[in-house]
Amino acid sequence: MGLADRVLAGETRAAARLMRLIDDALPAAEAELRVLFPKTGRAQIVGITGNPGAGKSTLVDRLIAHLRAAGKTVGVLAVDPTSPFTGGAILGDRIRMQDHALDPGVFIRSLATRGQLGGLSRATSDCARVLDAMGKDVILIETVGVGQDEVEICRLAHTTVVVVVPGLGDDIQAIKAGILEVADVFAVNKADREGADRTVRDLRSMLELSQSRGGPAGKDDSEVQIVKCVASRDEGVTDVWAAVEAHYKHLQQGGGLLEREKLRARTELLEILRERLLREAVARLAQQGARLDDLSLRIARREVDPYTVAEEAVRT
Amino acid sequence: MGLADRVLAGETRAAARLMRLIDDALPAAEAELRVLFPKTGRAQIVGITGNPGAGKSTLVDRLIAHLRAAGKTVGVLAVDPTSPFTGGAILGDRIRMQDHALDPGVFIRSLATRGQLGGLSRATSDCARVLDAMGKDVILIETVGVGQDEVEICRLAHTTVVVVVPGLGDDIQAIKAGILEVADVFAVNKADREGADRTVRDLRSMLELSQSRGGPAGKDDSEVQIVKCVASRDEGVTDVWAAVEAHYKHLQQGGGLLEREKLRARTELLEILRERLLREAVARLAQQGARLDDLSLRIARREVDPYTVAEEAVRT
Repeated sequence: MGLADRVLAGETRAAARLMRLIDDALPAAEAELRVLFPKTGRAQIVGITGNPGAGKSTLVDRLIAHLRAAGKTVGVLAVDPTSPFTGGAILGDRIRMQDHALDPGVFIRSLATRGQLGGLSRATSDCARVLDAMGKDVILIETVGVGQDEVEICRLAHTTVVVVVPGLGDDIQAIKAGILEVADVFAVNKADREGADRTVRDLRSMLELSQSRGGPAGKDDSEVQIVKCVASRDEGVTDVWAAVEAHYKHLQQGGGLLEREKLRARTELLEILRERLLREAVARLAQQGARLDDLSLRIARREVDPYTVAEEAVRT
Repeated sequence: MGLADRVLAGETRAAARLMRLIDDALPAAEAELRVLFPKTGRAQIVGITGNPGAGKSTLVDRLIAHLRAAGKTVGVLAVDPTSPFTGGAILGDRIRMQDHALDPGVFIRSLATRGQLGGLSRATSDCARVLDAMGKDVILIETVGVGQDEVEICRLAHTTVVVVVPGLGDDIQAIKAGILEVADVFAVNKADREGADRTVRDLRSMLELSQSRGGPAGKDDSEVQIVKCVASRDEGVTDVWAAVEAHYKHLQQGGGLLEREKLRARTELLEILRERLLREAVARLAQQGARLDDLSLRIARREVDPYTVAEEAVRT
């Protein structure tokens, strides 16, 4: 049996192996993904994002327990902005999450940034597809931070939960503005801290302001829910999930699910195209003897500008 | 006079206009950039990055004052991960920085994320080039967070300063690991807080560990400096700059400057190529009647897989 068939049979080791191929951006992964593709599209994909220290991993940990109790199988992708040098950090939180690894109904995998442009969101998308093909009912994608990469990753999810904590500074307000487009649910974690109600009010006025201006671009019409929780004490986690489910149902009923799938397909198609065309162009440049390294040196010396080089490369 | 010539003459309004064209990704910008390109390469480019709340903007503010006192002109690019909806947040810190805007020797500009893949680092690179062409001696690029985008942006800089604060949690340790490759100087800000010495020690052991394993990939051989400061009280800011200068001198003397320029040229060339090829491919798909939207729908319905579609598009 090929790797893809073993994944479809739910074999954990095959899934882990395929994800390693994907993470290493090996072409071998693609052949397997083609086989898997028609069998995917069943899983519910939920993104969990927010600033460092917001308690995302703890929330994910509790959501896993909650989903397992409800009889659902769970896949988790933890996207780490860690160095190729360290090769992925092992965090206290992650270790805690790994307790669930003894449970065959849970599959957890960390994905690191490998430094390829646009590589992380594609690798995440492909790995989510593997979990989907394995038959996992729910896929949780946890991302640290809210850079452009994270926004791209959130576009993969059916529902995105943004975890915030009370007592936000100026800088964090700015980041919040950046994730308005992707947030379907705000989880105000550590809600036993002072200022939790104020954070809820702040979020609400921000959302109202956004609505009054026509809402963020690309956002569906479902109302963004704000839910308080204390994940470390398992309080309010059920409410967070209820909000996720409500959003998912709204998508299903209003045709939004297909819309999201289309958006994801579009993003993915463009990324694959981009990568292939680039690979081909670099190979052609090399054939012509105009090696990339030489061209870079000539540009660095201001002998030629990058726009002209790119134009010539495209033309030939 | 064309826009580029007016920029070369140091005209502030022309530079602002060209940067708007760049930020909006208008093709008109490229023609002007081609004219500017041969006149660039003089400015010293310094990246300032770190987590929200680390005090980057305050440090940038003080560095501007310090550089102006030393008779240098300064350009600042503040890269905001803000929403296309809000169109760039106005922060308290940024407003404070704008005090310098009355000084003709200082040019400050915020860049927002527009949602194009890879668009932000290219826009930042192009805007840095405009500041360079204007004759600014030093260009400070401030980025919030340390996602993949930020790492790409740091690659534009000759020297990257990573701002950290005492008392780091688990999540932040993970992020620190991710920026080992790009950090040339660590500024331990708010060093009057408890735990500052411990943070310095932690950073040092992390660096030693990294060195003992051969160092992070793509890093030059200069020693990473760790400097304590309290930017809000203007303490240690001179030391931070001295460390930046020492690194820059090291690059100049060891030929590392040309290496960095080459790396930047290479990254930029690949990005321009990628964008053009993609634009061309999408246009061709449209011509063939196989519109992107239809293809996305067919993929979303699992009628066809994205790998096959991409392959066919590349072949034709």
